[in-house]
Amino acid sequence: MRVALGLEYCGRSFTGWQSQPGGRGVQDALERALAKIADAPVRTIAAGRTDAGVHATMQVVHFDADAQRRDTAWVRGVNANLPDDVAVLWAQPVAPEFHARFDAREREYTYLLSARPVRPALSAGRIGWYHRSLDVAAMQDGAAALVGTHDFSAFRAAECQAKSPVRTLSSVSISAAGDVVRFDFRANAYLHHMIRNVVGALVQVGAGKQSPSWIGELLAARDRTRAAPTFSPDGLYFTGVEYDAMWALPSTRRPILPALT
Amino acid sequence: MRVALGLEYCGRSFTGWQSQPGGRGVQDALERALAKIADAPVRTIAAGRTDAGVHATMQVVHFDADAQRRDTAWVRGVNANLPDDVAVLWAQPVAPEFHARFDAREREYTYLLSARPVRPALSAGRIGWYHRSLDVAAMQDGAAALVGTHDFSAFRAAECQAKSPVRTLSSVSISAAGDVVRFDFRANAYLHHMIRNVVGALVQVGAGKQSPSWIGELLAARDRTRAAPTFSPDGLYFTGVEYDAMWALPSTRRPILPALT
Repeated sequence: MRVALGLEYCGRSFTGWQSQPGGRGVQDALERALAKIADAPVRTIAAGRTDAGVHATMQVVHFDADAQRRDTAWVRGVNANLPDDVAVLWAQPVAPEFHARFDAREREYTYLLSARPVRPALSAGRIGWYHRSLDVAAMQDGAAALVGTHDFSAFRAAECQAKSPVRTLSSVSISAAGDVVRFDFRANAYLHHMIRNVVGALVQVGAGKQSPSWIGELLAARDRTRAAPTFSPDGLYFTGVEYDAMWALPSTRRPILPALT
Repeated sequence: MRVALGLEYCGRSFTGWQSQPGGRGVQDALERALAKIADAPVRTIAAGRTDAGVHATMQVVHFDADAQRRDTAWVRGVNANLPDDVAVLWAQPVAPEFHARFDAREREYTYLLSARPVRPALSAGRIGWYHRSLDVAAMQDGAAALVGTHDFSAFRAAECQAKSPVRTLSSVSISAAGDVVRFDFRANAYLHHMIRNVVGALVQVGAGKQSPSWIGELLAARDRTRAAPTFSPDGLYFTGVEYDAMWALPSTRRPILPALT
């Protein structure tokens, strides 16, 4: 039986999504908890392999299990065996052809950034930081150049193992409330560190150190060494995945609420 | 020289505001950091002594120091010596008669609660939890009985050391966004555990286990044993203080943003 599940986690105490020899990946924690319910080892596949320190409001995962369990066992039973910073939001059987990673059509991320003189303390590790205010309109101007299908080599980490540097970014939107700036991204997929590199470049524009047109120039130059440093993982949240309706999954998107701190 | 400062902190790793023999109070961390900048011991007084696990977007503190330091030293210098979950937001000299606690005219708190089947993981320790949805209108109806000057004995912890159980609650407002319910309180002062006890009672109303009129009945009965259990500290945030304008302080209020998770 193949099962799909939705997962949320705080990335602060993990080495990232992916299973690690030390067992400190989110995947390790999830597979340990699933194994207890399945009474057998379980291997999971996720829609997006988040980096160390990156959070998820909605990660989508699938796994195969011989054990027949009720959906509530895969939720409540697994949650009882997970650390308090990881929780299964829903679980349900899915067609055996479903693949959480390969069937994902679009992935959404939000980056939250505190733009103020003092480092964030209440939300330490959960929000990025820049020490002065940022011009949101200038960043939005610059970001417009990124929308569409492009070679994103300028924003690609040296360690990136993707075969092609071409990705399709459907939208970037940038907004501010108080001293918090929010960047929402939607794309088919991302290169390694792509969002953190894009945010790093946009912050240069927001701070007035570069003009909005610099973003398009960077993109066209396809040269990572000309761009800005990679921004911190602290403010990055994986917020959902789009799948074809044929899979009949529950909600696979959970945008960060326009409601809280 | 007397100095006032604004402070934010995440309460998860502290035993509460107040200095403790083990040194794990927020006050201990702040006094250690201030002492390094002042080159002498420093004693602080806060507007509100938050419990273990309770957070602050804006705590107001005063202290006396012989050392002459620039305001930036009391901010940047102290922040460099504080743990990453505490930060000074501003600091400035204030009249020697100013008292952060006794001059506070009103104190504001926000309680955030996740109302959903699954425990909160991304915001573990930073939001309260009830396992099903809540009727916000019913809770607002019930809460209306609390506004005004009353004997709040029904919502007072047994350990409360206040001389009088009478407090003046200026406002309670309750709202929801997605599955997060938010309670905003404004009062001259609070009894020990008063907000957590009020939230516990309001949740009974929101869940349909009690009618809205039960809140007024509890209040009138002045009997703690008839009310609901104390709610978790996880979702409680101290969000500011009102002082007379004569003290010429920077902003002493920092409401939780209608912007983020």
